Amino acid sequence: MKQVTSQISVSLDGYVAAPEQSRADPLGRGGLRLHEWFFATESWRAQHGLAGGERNVDAEVVDEMTAGIGAYVMGRRMFGGGEGAWDREWTGWWGEDPPFHVPVFVLTHHPRESLVKGGTEFHFVTDGVEAALAAARAVAGDRDVAVAGGASAIRQYLAAGLLDTLWLHVVPIVLGGGTPLFGGPLDVTLDPVRVVPAPTVTHVKYRVRPGTPGSAAAGSSRTSS
Amino acid sequence: MKQVTSQISVSLDGYVAAPEQSRADPLGRGGLRLHEWFFATESWRAQHGLAGGERNVDAEVVDEMTAGIGAYVMGRRMFGGGEGAWDREWTGWWGEDPPFHVPVFVLTHHPRESLVKGGTEFHFVTDGVEAALAAARAVAGDRDVAVAGGASAIRQYLAAGLLDTLWLHVVPIVLGGGTPLFGGPLDVTLDPVRVVPAPTVTHVKYRVRPGTPGSAAAGSSRTSS
Repeated sequence: MKQVTSQISVSLDGYVAAPEQSRADPLGRGGLRLHEWFFATESWRAQHGLAGGERNVDAEVVDEMTAGIGAYVMGRRMFGGGEGAWDREWTGWWGEDPPFHVPVFVLTHHPRESLVKGGTEFHFVTDGVEAALAAARAVAGDRDVAVAGGASAIRQYLAAGLLDTLWLHVVPIVLGGGTPLFGGPLDVTLDPVRVVPAPTVTHVKYRVRPGTPGSAAAGSSRTSS
Repeated sequence: MKQVTSQISVSLDGYVAAPEQSRADPLGRGGLRLHEWFFATESWRAQHGLAGGERNVDAEVVDEMTAGIGAYVMGRRMFGGGEGAWDREWTGWWGEDPPFHVPVFVLTHHPRESLVKGGTEFHFVTDGVEAALAAARAVAGDRDVAVAGGASAIRQYLAAGLLDTLWLHVVPIVLGGGTPLFGGPLDVTLDPVRVVPAPTVTHVKYRVRPGTPGSAAAGSSRTSS
């Protein structure tokens, strides 16, 4: 069954990036600490063409999350390159061979021709989250679609009721500011369906249902599931 | 070994109470959802003299957290009754037999004589977090001391390096505002030492060490532990 999934590392105070973000420091001062568990894995290193790394429970979670993904959807800010009209020189953060290796659909208000970097095609979608997801589903076929991030894209797919599962990697640090994953109330119910304890972080997989817990919408959804 | 422990339920966006708090609605609009897992347990009901309730993994966590507690420390706001000089009519939220049944030390700037309600004595401490903890330790003897809350008291004990363990009950709701558990950076390292998945929440027990992860302080603490 094709799922629409997402996953993101979040601090205990709910941030996905630290304060003082810049092109040189896209996760802000100290924000890389959110991803240390990930960068240490053999899985992450292999995706980036690197040998070595840890073969541990974190790596198993990464493998599980990335298996069977046929396309990605990504927010403009995650692709990077600043705001407004495109600087065509900017081709993403990932160098000559981005780690996706399946088509990536970038949400943007500014048209741009598709771009091929290494084994990844980037397509730029200007007609909204539903259109981007439909395009991703079409190329993914019987595989899943992942919302790669960032926080704003994940929030939009959650709010639109288009996300089926969300992995949160709860990193026990307090950033004290930065980019919040949420940033306002959200009318969804998240049921923890899997928890993977790891030495430095806690991975929790949530099933997403529409409606606030306890509300009529959540109740009817519960009945029908 | 005597430990100083604490535990609190926190939303995915890092709040321990919802917006629009009042004396009638101390956890704010929708904030009770943070504690539904707790109120449903046989353990919570028994502490409040009530029969019934669930005997589940949540109840086991509650039993584990409350076993061996010889005294509590509590912030002024958790005891309640508003700000400023004491309204002597206010004797806490908990009715005639508060659930603690061991001495409770309330942090306050306003002196007040001790108070006995049911099986619980409340003592009001005006000379700070260290003095309150020392008093609690003295009566706890070889038992643990728990910081009952709220967020401000927990933050102060964390920041002072006086907390040994912290259980966070991660409740998958998004409150969008209210009282943050943190609210600024915090120079501690939290190591997840135990994770208990439950149907609606995820319980994570952290060991607290001074120093930010990766800093010299954290490194030396790691070496000596």
